[in-house]
Amino acid sequence: MTFDGLWNSILDIGRDPAGGYRRFAWTTADLTLREWFTGEAARRGMTVEEDRNGNVWAWWMPAGWIGDPVGAFVTGSHLDSVPGGGAFDGPLGIVSAFAAIDDLIGRGVSPRIPVAVVAFSDEEGGRFGVACVGSQLSTGAVTAERALNLRDADGITLAEALRAAGRDPEHVGVDPRLVERVGVYVELHVEQGRALDLMDRPVAVASAIWPHGRWRFRFRGEGNHAGTTRLVDRRDPMLAFASTVRAARDRATVHDAVATFGKLAVTPNGANAIPSQLEAWLDARAADEDTLAAMVEAIAADASAFAEGDRISMEVDVESVSPAVVFPDQPRERIVRALVGLGDVPVLPTQAGHDAGVLSATVPTAMLFVRNPTGISHSPDEYAEIADCRLGAHALADVMADWVTG
Amino acid sequence: MTFDGLWNSILDIGRDPAGGYRRFAWTTADLTLREWFTGEAARRGMTVEEDRNGNVWAWWMPAGWIGDPVGAFVTGSHLDSVPGGGAFDGPLGIVSAFAAIDDLIGRGVSPRIPVAVVAFSDEEGGRFGVACVGSQLSTGAVTAERALNLRDADGITLAEALRAAGRDPEHVGVDPRLVERVGVYVELHVEQGRALDLMDRPVAVASAIWPHGRWRFRFRGEGNHAGTTRLVDRRDPMLAFASTVRAARDRATVHDAVATFGKLAVTPNGANAIPSQLEAWLDARAADEDTLAAMVEAIAADASAFAEGDRISMEVDVESVSPAVVFPDQPRERIVRALVGLGDVPVLPTQAGHDAGVLSATVPTAMLFVRNPTGISHSPDEYAEIADCRLGAHALADVMADWVTG
Repeated sequence: MTFDGLWNSILDIGRDPAGGYRRFAWTTADLTLREWFTGEAARRGMTVEEDRNGNVWAWWMPAGWIGDPVGAFVTGSHLDSVPGGGAFDGPLGIVSAFAAIDDLIGRGVSPRIPVAVVAFSDEEGGRFGVACVGSQLSTGAVTAERALNLRDADGITLAEALRAAGRDPEHVGVDPRLVERVGVYVELHVEQGRALDLMDRPVAVASAIWPHGRWRFRFRGEGNHAGTTRLVDRRDPMLAFASTVRAARDRATVHDAVATFGKLAVTPNGANAIPSQLEAWLDARAADEDTLAAMVEAIAADASAFAEGDRISMEVDVESVSPAVVFPDQPRERIVRALVGLGDVPVLPTQAGHDAGVLSATVPTAMLFVRNPTGISHSPDEYAEIADCRLGAHALADVMADWVTG
Repeated sequence: MTFDGLWNSILDIGRDPAGGYRRFAWTTADLTLREWFTGEAARRGMTVEEDRNGNVWAWWMPAGWIGDPVGAFVTGSHLDSVPGGGAFDGPLGIVSAFAAIDDLIGRGVSPRIPVAVVAFSDEEGGRFGVACVGSQLSTGAVTAERALNLRDADGITLAEALRAAGRDPEHVGVDPRLVERVGVYVELHVEQGRALDLMDRPVAVASAIWPHGRWRFRFRGEGNHAGTTRLVDRRDPMLAFASTVRAARDRATVHDAVATFGKLAVTPNGANAIPSQLEAWLDARAADEDTLAAMVEAIAADASAFAEGDRISMEVDVESVSPAVVFPDQPRERIVRALVGLGDVPVLPTQAGHDAGVLSATVPTAMLFVRNPTGISHSPDEYAEIADCRLGAHALADVMADWVTG
């Protein structure tokens, strides 16, 4: 099947009525995409296996291979999205993986080592709040207990969502087969930023991922009537939050980093009620771990001071922190060499987290980026030219061919 | 039945899992309370009628009265609540109305004019955003077209909610019988503020309601990735909103008024996404209409300036504005005289809107307030002493007895 045919076959799955996609983990949209994945694997004679954490693997085994896969070339990404996400973030890596296999078959390449396409579960954390849950469970970066007790906006735990999808939450945990099975994991992803566009290049290889994390700020005041409560009697958590938003931006500027409040939960969220509580999630990222820690500490101290001034309470919980990832020279240098047909391929860092970053603590990993002409991501406006996407899939095929015949 | 028995019989209906009550219009909780209302009316031999706008009336007719009610003494309040509301705001007026009727029956009083207990529909606007929808429809303060197209957080219109509850939205509109039927409307309500507590008095009569309204501020930026979008490239609506929150507080202080952002809707509300849009509802109230208009205009101008600075767009829509209400000398003076047993009854203004304020443009209205020792309202912590509530119901019975035998 052509790249275009594969790409078009998922464009109608899980659209968000407000624009873009809403493909939250273990919802109907996600399950439909998983069925699509299984169908594409079957069409190529690949064996599909879902691991204990809901990550799906499609295996293309060398002729005559006996026993379990060892040292495989693994490529893929994720199928889930943020709310109102774009079409490319995640699915592009999986469509490109299948397209690369088709390319190799077309070239008459027979792999000498196992090849797998993988779709990691719940990479965005759009539903349960923690990103890369599937890969973090498999590597042990998050415990089964913590993951299974995560709750979505409706109060449903991951354990309950798994059960509702016919999975057994008791199976969840570290996947000890990962090290032996995965020789290398190469994730192709749409660029989230405009670096390639500014360089006028279609494809890059990743050098590093900024350390990043999520912190939940909980401002607790006193719910009361918005009309009858005198200003001096108020303990309104909205004010300290508002000041913290401005402070976070100022701290990010000073630290040459980024800090974002993009998700809020207001209680009771009534137009004529002073809120009793406001929860706000801080996404923060910096070039190194010390800078990140210093910035978040400063923002939390600012928030504490504002809260004290308004006679409310404030507490901060760490929801996740991902350390800096520096992708290893190998496989990166070998990949750059395999892409010699594209000229000097740029090598770039990214501020976005990925399963390839999580896996890098356990197995050799690398990433390819495909140009994003506006740099917009996590938005319905996320975009890539289809010609660049085809080129990206072709580049992935070159890397795969080099690896599986080398 | 005793006041306490009546009061306790609704305490388990529509509790909010997060605390307090969540009795939104036309939800199961509201329908259950309507059934309770009908049952209490039936127990007293009163005839129940639901008008075209879902307001429920229970009639106690003079013996031998023939034909439709004219010039009735009407008392009541509302059964719905804000999210996380208290037990008293609304239901206290209806429980007290039934208790006052029991009191009159106990005293052997036979009314010479019709008496009604009324439960106005959707007073808080907790679900569809506009307050006093039931009374505003009946008086024509809001049009049927506008009301029926209001949407709740799930996108359900009032018309759809009415249909789901077995009501016909085509019936909705002005109630021309109101003027002839209602001789006077007296609403008893828990005080929302601490004035009575500070004066050490249990019951007051209302003098006026501050003008007030709701405005929806819509900040529109550009959704993008919270990690990979450079600060200088961002068009994040959270920042201008945050500045507007602080500005609104400052403007309220200057105008000796109140201004509150208590309800927000963030799109897409993802932890790792810069919001594309943030809607925020401003509740503003002031001692007179000019001050209110000037304050809201200033806050809107502040918000516009912040939005321009952040390269985002901002627009403000008026959702509702209630003019100042000055309760007329009559019936107020007659009510104060009827309460002579309580000594000099305080006469107080309130910052909270009520159906009695809406109706005051059409029929004579008055209000009684019952002491609230903390002043807290629109919160699970809203409270009144049961002894004060009994006293309030007794005062209402005195007013009713004076009126229906006068």
